Amino acid sequence: MGKTFLEVKTVRFLHTGDWHIGKKLHGYDLLSDQKQILDQILDIAITQKVDALVIAGDLYDRSVPSVEACELLNQAFIKINLQNNLPILAISGNHDSAVRLRTGMPWYEQTNFHLYTDLKQSFTPIEMDDVQFFLLPYFEPITARVYFEEEKLSLQEAIKKIVEKMKQAFNPNKKQVLVTHFFVAGSTRCDSETPIEVGGLNGIPYELIQDFDYVALGHLHSKNALNAENARYSGSPLKFSLSEKDDSKGVWILDSKNMVPEFHQLEPKRDIRVLQASFETLTDPDFYQQQERTSFWYFQLTNRSVITNMMNQLRAIYPNILGVERVNGRDQSNLLNKVKQRKKSPYQMLTSFFEEITGDELTEKQRSWLEQGLQQAIDTEREEQ
Amino acid sequence: MGKTFLEVKTVRFLHTGDWHIGKKLHGYDLLSDQKQILDQILDIAITQKVDALVIAGDLYDRSVPSVEACELLNQAFIKINLQNNLPILAISGNHDSAVRLRTGMPWYEQTNFHLYTDLKQSFTPIEMDDVQFFLLPYFEPITARVYFEEEKLSLQEAIKKIVEKMKQAFNPNKKQVLVTHFFVAGSTRCDSETPIEVGGLNGIPYELIQDFDYVALGHLHSKNALNAENARYSGSPLKFSLSEKDDSKGVWILDSKNMVPEFHQLEPKRDIRVLQASFETLTDPDFYQQQERTSFWYFQLTNRSVITNMMNQLRAIYPNILGVERVNGRDQSNLLNKVKQRKKSPYQMLTSFFEEITGDELTEKQRSWLEQGLQQAIDTEREEQ
Repeated sequence: MGKTFLEVKTVRFLHTGDWHIGKKLHGYDLLSDQKQILDQILDIAITQKVDALVIAGDLYDRSVPSVEACELLNQAFIKINLQNNLPILAISGNHDSAVRLRTGMPWYEQTNFHLYTDLKQSFTPIEMDDVQFFLLPYFEPITARVYFEEEKLSLQEAIKKIVEKMKQAFNPNKKQVLVTHFFVAGSTRCDSETPIEVGGLNGIPYELIQDFDYVALGHLHSKNALNAENARYSGSPLKFSLSEKDDSKGVWILDSKNMVPEFHQLEPKRDIRVLQASFETLTDPDFYQQQERTSFWYFQLTNRSVITNMMNQLRAIYPNILGVERVNGRDQSNLLNKVKQRKKSPYQMLTSFFEEITGDELTEKQRSWLEQGLQQAIDTEREEQ
Repeated sequence: MGKTFLEVKTVRFLHTGDWHIGKKLHGYDLLSDQKQILDQILDIAITQKVDALVIAGDLYDRSVPSVEACELLNQAFIKINLQNNLPILAISGNHDSAVRLRTGMPWYEQTNFHLYTDLKQSFTPIEMDDVQFFLLPYFEPITARVYFEEEKLSLQEAIKKIVEKMKQAFNPNKKQVLVTHFFVAGSTRCDSETPIEVGGLNGIPYELIQDFDYVALGHLHSKNALNAENARYSGSPLKFSLSEKDDSKGVWILDSKNMVPEFHQLEPKRDIRVLQASFETLTDPDFYQQQERTSFWYFQLTNRSVITNMMNQLRAIYPNILGVERVNGRDQSNLLNKVKQRKKSPYQMLTSFFEEITGDELTEKQRSWLEQGLQQAIDTEREEQ
């Protein structure tokens, strides 16, 4: 691109995000898992000698986190920034309360802990050696409309104007990194994300952000959600849903010299495990003593008969059970069907439910009844709004 | 006391507390009043050239304050500590969540903003010139029991041990100031405080804290709640209940040279006003145009007849009405009776209610029925516990 980088110190940074501190998995508290994973992230940062930690939003799981979640995140920041003198570049995501998160922010700045929660802050890059970091927190279109004083502005149009304004601050002798928290069109979703659907928009077109040397994204929980040349989702550091059972979780490390993301895997304290077996196998000491019993288990039971007190017997051996389903030898991919279920329309969901229960397809007559019923439900809802 | 203070710089400090940011008065939002009053406190601090601001707990009104309350307090701290470089010495009170409040605390320390929320922190004084400030946040007895590893420890015993431990750090060449948030025995309560009644204890005996040169107290909302030689409640900076209508609110300023508290009054944006008048007077333009209509009004109506749509007519003129009562010429001190009502026993409350309604006293028979009824209620409650 005609840029020259002679004798300029480069920046090595770690890209993570979607920590969702305080999140529960099927009702199980994840705080101890999150503490362990944050310690691992810090260990990687130290071992890999990075110059900064980039956190792409959703630090907390909700706008009013529990005191335990507050304590955990605060302690993590103290360790990273004050005890290890590592600069932090973080933004708020759609799960965070911008105002609650920025408590103390002007004091954090004193030790290079930059926590941006306001669109206005995004136009002034944080400069580190040969990199300009632009920190664009999650925002609602109304915020952009107020900022740009335009009554109608879609999220897409807002991002376009924001990037244009950022470009005015681009230094041609430096590289530019955008840190942001949105859905980029064409990315793949998973079950633990809260969809952002504003104004019927599917997401930000990738073209709008392609002029950055790297885009450190947050929001989607899989590191492979987007396969673009210069943009990556870090993914969440832990698995937050059954649909992520086969994902590998970790962080990206980049060097401003070449901006090639390098994946570093994280090892959870308790992993999600899906197992198809009979009740007799699962409760056989010879079997279960070989297993990591404290994992988050999802069992696909092959038994056909009724088992008295089944859940209590299983829980006595496996304390963290996400769910048990009966596969009955009839449909061995039931789990994946269930996972896919959520993405079906109400019509599809009802027909597949009918088929699963009765083993028959709906007749023409039944299909027409179903359509009429659904239409009535939609009409009623519209009237009420 | 045999102490000598030759050529030592003295400390001038402002003592405030019980800000209760986010508190409402009879449903009315006080945020704009609180913003104005915090600005006044800062103005006094600057004009009076104080070296530090002491805040004796209850910064927020509840453990999870609204985002508007968070924003207001954060902006106040930014103005005081970062923009005006004034050191802050603050503790958490019984209304604050210690964990939520201490978010960012280790970063605040860098600019002499000390926010102590943990009993453990209280034993190391903050030293400023000739003063040692001991910051003892509000705590529950269980915290002291864990800290001192004693299974049974009343609040009184805990404070005794804490003060003994603090005394080990006393520097005889300096003065000692204790900042704390408790009920000191013998103090006078008012209606806007949440009573702290732990283990049936009435409060901390004054003798326990008399060895400090000054005790900057928080918790009670009247500056005159305690009349001790070396201890004062700052009182709340605003009136938070009708019972405080005649209080004057303000801050104390002290100089370590003599430790004599000097009162500086605060002027609220909207004061509480109690007025006895007829509906005709209150709605007469010649009258109300002379009044500060946006005050928080409490009216004692002298009319006897029914007035249609009374509250709406009054609210159209006086937007902030705390209450309206009918005095009917019969009992002109009704308001004060109501205020006192809350401190009565159930038996006293019922007899005075009977007398107010019927104009007669209870007969012997009626008194005996009432006693039996109350006893039954108490017995039932005991059984249920």
